[in-house]
Amino acid sequence: MAYQEAFLREAIRLSIEKMEAGEGGPFGAVVVKNGAVVGRGWNRVTSANDPTAHAEVMAIREACAALATFSLRGCEIYASCEPCPMCLAAIHWARLDACHYAATRHDAAEAGFDDALLYEQLGRAPEPRQRPDGEPLRDEALEAFRRWGADPGRTPY
Amino acid sequence: MAYQEAFLREAIRLSIEKMEAGEGGPFGAVVVKNGAVVGRGWNRVTSANDPTAHAEVMAIREACAALATFSLRGCEIYASCEPCPMCLAAIHWARLDACHYAATRHDAAEAGFDDALLYEQLGRAPEPRQRPDGEPLRDEALEAFRRWGADPGRTPY
Repeated sequence: MAYQEAFLREAIRLSIEKMEAGEGGPFGAVVVKNGAVVGRGWNRVTSANDPTAHAEVMAIREACAALATFSLRGCEIYASCEPCPMCLAAIHWARLDACHYAATRHDAAEAGFDDALLYEQLGRAPEPRQRPDGEPLRDEALEAFRRWGADPGRTPY
Repeated sequence: MAYQEAFLREAIRLSIEKMEAGEGGPFGAVVVKNGAVVGRGWNRVTSANDPTAHAEVMAIREACAALATFSLRGCEIYASCEPCPMCLAAIHWARLDACHYAATRHDAAEAGFDDALLYEQLGRAPEPRQRPDGEPLRDEALEAFRRWGADPGRTPY
């Protein structure tokens, strides 16, 4: 699929229109498959009381619901701004083929969104991040993985 | 709030019980406030057709809905496994005070979940990641941020 400016414009349109409607922060996104929009999203953090309701996450959820799948292989996402780490990882888990965006993480930081800080923190080794000493109950938790691995009927994702 | 093993055990219980019920991958999480569980989550990626339906995200959504807020300051999350980058960033956006977990990202990798790869990729500078050349429509997208900054009635999050 070739990048199409019209889809990026649609993401930008949503970022402005929905923000001005009081839905949340100034971000929009669309998921595209075979030249058609299959999911639209915009930031609804404050209106939906859901800190995970970022534009890209919402667009992914809508596209997956519309296509009745948990994999968006063969689709691309267009976002008004560079995805934050949560959304970038969601794009990875959704198996989207590509991500196109307009504004950058630095633009977002200037507008008061701390994506850049978050990227910096995620890039660190795990040790400095907050966690209890040692690995409490790790072996108990591994039982879930053992059972997962032993289940021939599991659905990988 | 002091770390309490019982909450980590509840997260582990969910990771096994819900996986065996066919809900999705072997992961569970609970959000705790003032010594009580206010949100439970488990992986529902494959059953809900939602690649963002990881245990921590689901627990955060449930806690926010229960408390009617988009901020979980004053709460902690307990997860059966170290959060993937999407969930770790969601924990950041939810403003949770702390995250406790049992199994590690390396355990998850051994079980077939590519969190570790994703952490490595997110730690890179933005350039090597997939994006179109240049910054198409960046200035158009910045209009959303300009309007956001100029709106005295906005709700920061």
